[in-house]
Amino acid sequence: MAQPVVTTRVLRRLLKTGAHFRAEKLLQKIHPADLGPLLSDLTPDEIRIVIDLLFKHHRAATMLTELPPELLPEIIDSISDQRLADVLNRLELDDMLELVDAIPEERRSVVMQHLPVARREELRHAELYPPRSAGRAMTTNFSALDEKMTAQEAIESLRASGINGSDAILYLYVVDELQRLTGVVPIRRLVTAQPETPVRELAIREMLSTPPDADQEEVAGLVARYDLLAIPVTDVDGTMLGVITVDDVIDVITEEATQDIYNLAGLSEEDRIFTSARVSISKRLPWMLVNLCTAFGAGAIVGVFEGTLDRMVSLAIFLPVVAGIGGNGGIQTLTVITRAIALGEIEFSSGMRAVGKEMFVGLVVGSAAGVISGAIAYLLHGNLYMGLVLFLAMIVTMVTASLVGAAVPLLLKAMGQDPALGSGILVTFAADALGFFSFLGIATLLLDRIA
Amino acid sequence: MAQPVVTTRVLRRLLKTGAHFRAEKLLQKIHPADLGPLLSDLTPDEIRIVIDLLFKHHRAATMLTELPPELLPEIIDSISDQRLADVLNRLELDDMLELVDAIPEERRSVVMQHLPVARREELRHAELYPPRSAGRAMTTNFSALDEKMTAQEAIESLRASGINGSDAILYLYVVDELQRLTGVVPIRRLVTAQPETPVRELAIREMLSTPPDADQEEVAGLVARYDLLAIPVTDVDGTMLGVITVDDVIDVITEEATQDIYNLAGLSEEDRIFTSARVSISKRLPWMLVNLCTAFGAGAIVGVFEGTLDRMVSLAIFLPVVAGIGGNGGIQTLTVITRAIALGEIEFSSGMRAVGKEMFVGLVVGSAAGVISGAIAYLLHGNLYMGLVLFLAMIVTMVTASLVGAAVPLLLKAMGQDPALGSGILVTFAADALGFFSFLGIATLLLDRIA
Repeated sequence: MAQPVVTTRVLRRLLKTGAHFRAEKLLQKIHPADLGPLLSDLTPDEIRIVIDLLFKHHRAATMLTELPPELLPEIIDSISDQRLADVLNRLELDDMLELVDAIPEERRSVVMQHLPVARREELRHAELYPPRSAGRAMTTNFSALDEKMTAQEAIESLRASGINGSDAILYLYVVDELQRLTGVVPIRRLVTAQPETPVRELAIREMLSTPPDADQEEVAGLVARYDLLAIPVTDVDGTMLGVITVDDVIDVITEEATQDIYNLAGLSEEDRIFTSARVSISKRLPWMLVNLCTAFGAGAIVGVFEGTLDRMVSLAIFLPVVAGIGGNGGIQTLTVITRAIALGEIEFSSGMRAVGKEMFVGLVVGSAAGVISGAIAYLLHGNLYMGLVLFLAMIVTMVTASLVGAAVPLLLKAMGQDPALGSGILVTFAADALGFFSFLGIATLLLDRIA
Repeated sequence: MAQPVVTTRVLRRLLKTGAHFRAEKLLQKIHPADLGPLLSDLTPDEIRIVIDLLFKHHRAATMLTELPPELLPEIIDSISDQRLADVLNRLELDDMLELVDAIPEERRSVVMQHLPVARREELRHAELYPPRSAGRAMTTNFSALDEKMTAQEAIESLRASGINGSDAILYLYVVDELQRLTGVVPIRRLVTAQPETPVRELAIREMLSTPPDADQEEVAGLVARYDLLAIPVTDVDGTMLGVITVDDVIDVITEEATQDIYNLAGLSEEDRIFTSARVSISKRLPWMLVNLCTAFGAGAIVGVFEGTLDRMVSLAIFLPVVAGIGGNGGIQTLTVITRAIALGEIEFSSGMRAVGKEMFVGLVVGSAAGVISGAIAYLLHGNLYMGLVLFLAMIVTMVTASLVGAAVPLLLKAMGQDPALGSGILVTFAADALGFFSFLGIATLLLDRIA
């Protein structure tokens, strides 16, 4: 397989010198999955030439599905309606849906006119399923077997579907006369079965399936948990609708992990590394406004104690220490809990146990931080009470930050919300506010002894 | 499939009332993957009974591999050496390696004595591969075909391996007389091939393979990228050693995502939701010490400007605002970049472009934050210069925090280190330090105009 970096350089040179025929040869050798990263290093003009070359080999369709989403709008713009429809027609349903979503709404219906009626119907039907559902992630391209067939007949039917049949067929789905799923035959069983065995006897009857409106993350969880290679999607009456394969599940798992990491930082999923600066800015501004409110909230608490600070300004040195340690502890707790929720390791009942544990960990780590920073404060000021103030404030802040970090995601989950969304900013705010309040509050109480 | 929550309740009642036979019946119906979550809700005594029941059905082996890692030590302690060896003997190589790692070192050699010599050798050989390598993640249980075989002979050989042959066989590996891999036959091709076709002709000859010492994350990346279902592991001379299957790849991807999320928060991978508090505390203490150093560092910067604060103590209100917005912006940048690195979306060259973009985004978002907070400062103090100080400090902090958030992970990666490890604390420190320094520094310069 060609090295991507080397390939980019060679391809650019070939395009620049107008050696399109040799560029075409090179492109043929590249796996569709490698085209995306390669294209992101080309200029828009070069990309347009490459797409033309790919169209010659009917490879533009797979290429478009592998492209980084931030490049897509520009490239779609440069493709004619007819060509776009050709591309859509070549794709499996799930990839087709994704690409349609990337076409600007005003152009969509025009492009659709160029699609064959059957495919247009299929698409319209799939669009009725909610976003991120099994119905949108499934492929309708699966092998169904009549339950009255023998193994030999099943093999013949597979052979007949020859050219379209993919190497990736793993299971055959046995359906009754109403197209209801009654069993699954792993293809391996078909290989070694006696020719006259009915497929009914080869089938696994107890199998998992999923309704089309199930959340794709839950479906991915099932496939991962039970080590499946594919899961059938069936209607309420058991009618076979499609199949979700493990390669799509891997994409879902990767996507959902990105979403979890992003949510903790208050980022929108669309804000990717090569998204245009304009999009990134528009996604981050609202979050910054929320953050500004909480930051001024924390500042206001400092303002309450202006009198104390005025009498002893050196207290200000310790503010970032209490808030920083508390914030870090809270974020650690938040991360452990949200990841456990995402991996399905926790229910609300066992959640209470987790909250207890995290508060205990916060107490111990906070006490250790309190002893060290209290000792430093004592050494700096030569005043034992000063050390005591920092020690107490650190414990209060750490325990409360741990409580907030553990409880907030569990509560959000219980309310049916995303457990990570906005949690990070809340935990940081809690640590800041509580850190400032406890430290300056205790200092005010003991002011006559420390000042 | 039985509902896990209901099952736990029923199982506990059966165990409490001594109805072991009915508990056994219930356990038989539970999928191994559901046993782990179920066991984590039982007491150690109950777990011991359940393990005894599972041993009766030779199901203890799969159960142990599905158990949450934090429960494992306790349970391993309660199993005899002979039984533990029986369990190991039933497992595939990768699961075996994982379980061996969980046995305390002093006990390991005793348990190994109970293993058949061949398996002991296999284990010893696998342990020579580095941790987290393909050699440790592969299974040695694959179907090899002699390249001289016909399709019919291949089917016969599959049939002969009957009982051991799993439904999950997807590819057959064609090897020459020296066991060197020469091609891959998707099992589907075997089904529809003419009986007398040589397997050589059915095989795909251009295929990916991986050396045994490759990092498992890279291998998982290959499988995900090229939508593979399995990837063969071969020695330098092409000898077929084993296979990594897509279900193991899913586990690797999930593990690596956890590691990425954890690294950003400075958490150790072993610090999971139900890890004992003792372990969690011991993992978090060193990180807290590092954090304490950076927090006191930020505090020291405030200390430098004690004179300024002494003259105008109300400046302290704005310290958390500048540091908070800067820290949030820096963490957002850090998250975008580390995720892109993890997904292989970025190389060092395109990294420079990303740094530029992030600094520009920081400039715009920082300016917006500066205008708003500057206006608030002006309204609070009725002093235009006060607003100017906040405006300028906010921009400086945001741009620099964005630079640090983008550059640190790229530099760590270029140095061959984990891009996320320690980055979070560094970015927060940079935002705090720069926020305090720029705000108090500019305030000091303009002190006569604002005080």
